[in-house]
Amino acid sequence: MSEADGGLGARASGPPLAILAGGGAFPLEVACEARRAGREPFLIGVVGATDSGIEAYPHVWVRMGEVGKLFAALKAQAIAEIVIIGAMTRPEFADLRLDWGAVRRAAGLAQLFRRGDNGLLAGIAAIIEREGVRVVGAHEVAPRLLAPIGKIGARGASHEDEVDIALGVRLLAALSTFDAGQGVVVGAGRVLAIEAAEGTDAMLARIAGMRANGRLRVSGPAGVLVKAPKRGQDLRLDMPAIGPKTIEEAAKAQLRGVAVAAGQVLLVERDRCAHDAGEAGMFLVGFAHTGRT
Amino acid sequence: MSEADGGLGARASGPPLAILAGGGAFPLEVACEARRAGREPFLIGVVGATDSGIEAYPHVWVRMGEVGKLFAALKAQAIAEIVIIGAMTRPEFADLRLDWGAVRRAAGLAQLFRRGDNGLLAGIAAIIEREGVRVVGAHEVAPRLLAPIGKIGARGASHEDEVDIALGVRLLAALSTFDAGQGVVVGAGRVLAIEAAEGTDAMLARIAGMRANGRLRVSGPAGVLVKAPKRGQDLRLDMPAIGPKTIEEAAKAQLRGVAVAAGQVLLVERDRCAHDAGEAGMFLVGFAHTGRT
Repeated sequence: MSEADGGLGARASGPPLAILAGGGAFPLEVACEARRAGREPFLIGVVGATDSGIEAYPHVWVRMGEVGKLFAALKAQAIAEIVIIGAMTRPEFADLRLDWGAVRRAAGLAQLFRRGDNGLLAGIAAIIEREGVRVVGAHEVAPRLLAPIGKIGARGASHEDEVDIALGVRLLAALSTFDAGQGVVVGAGRVLAIEAAEGTDAMLARIAGMRANGRLRVSGPAGVLVKAPKRGQDLRLDMPAIGPKTIEEAAKAQLRGVAVAAGQVLLVERDRCAHDAGEAGMFLVGFAHTGRT
Repeated sequence: MSEADGGLGARASGPPLAILAGGGAFPLEVACEARRAGREPFLIGVVGATDSGIEAYPHVWVRMGEVGKLFAALKAQAIAEIVIIGAMTRPEFADLRLDWGAVRRAAGLAQLFRRGDNGLLAGIAAIIEREGVRVVGAHEVAPRLLAPIGKIGARGASHEDEVDIALGVRLLAALSTFDAGQGVVVGAGRVLAIEAAEGTDAMLARIAGMRANGRLRVSGPAGVLVKAPKRGQDLRLDMPAIGPKTIEEAAKAQLRGVAVAAGQVLLVERDRCAHDAGEAGMFLVGFAHTGRT
């Protein structure tokens, strides 16, 4: 428990902030950045998904489906804004442990499970906002976590890499209307892999696998991971993110580098990403992205 | 060697036909169908790729890059038409064993290796046709191998499946302009997987993997494999195909079924596909596809 256990810390400067934390270390990084920016966060952990590291902050644990408990905690803490962040496995509706607060909202919840991931998250946000809590993006409370424009590591992209990045950006834009695809791997004008439900890391592992089994016969570094949000994607809810694990998988896939939409992709542990990319001989860059207009 | 060793068989009715055979059993099925249709095929095997079953027919073996030997064989057999069929791993230019006939055409060959798969095959076809041999599709010499319209197995697609199939067809059309994607898996309106360089079977294995690791949490059969040619894809060169292995992987992924563009996708061992799909409780259907106009 922190010194601010039970409510707002002494340094708090914004409205009371909650963080609904999915899996991985990223929610903790957002919490740390929010605190650095002067806002003491209240963390909500999901049993079985969230890292126990949230217990360093004021927090509460809820089970999937304990919607009533979630809202009671938000009310008790007088929360005005909430960030939803971290890896979340889309649950089956039947697996939820619905409490009374959930049952009261059941019709709305059930509807959500017929939607794509974007629709699901948007619906969850709408339900939260109906309770008077504003959903904000991690980038709003922790803007230092966003990818900058240009070189992030020591290396830059070559002209040929830029051509591949542009192709990747166009492909991602085409996929956007299908509520699919935040990442693609493109190399020398060829589309090598397209991300759907498997996630970026699994897509990169696939490239490594295709190299190993001879399906992809290239020698030396090849391919660029291009990541950008879907057009119309609500960045408050589902912002693309990369971190050291992404860099590690990209290195195993022997990519030439990683390119992310500047200002629209979260960088988990930026310094480590930059360092690890450099060690692997890869570039790591942020590109100007106009695809969201 | 067959009774027709060395040239045209007694039953030959079309112009002398060669089959440039990639991996797998499908080239043999095409050869068998061509023979049934009255044309004795001359098979060209690629060392390290082609099934030795081609030796049941008049044949020659060439190594990757032995372009001169290939053309000498076509000339010696007075071949007028050639089918290019079967799994081919895209080679690195540096891995080719170029013979004199290849060196003579080296500038054109080297250019090809900067293209996507479509471009590569189109270039190979152009080089072959420059030698006076017409490149024809497997569907032209063995039309019985094409998927028909409607139910192929015992089961049909439900209305909801039809909606997913339509979504998959639209997604494939959007991917077409990127020379990528002959297959997608769509379930209940969500895009679950998109095929790029890994191939259809690997994509299906991914669905099974996502079910196993909890990334994809669905209970019971879910998802439809949708396959159609890319728009503008030259069906003579790179026709989508499915076979028992596809059905097996689809069953492991617990899909609801498989839908292929009628008249535009080759069905390897149709009866076995239909049987195996039924055994696995899956539908197997051909849908009318207008995407190629």
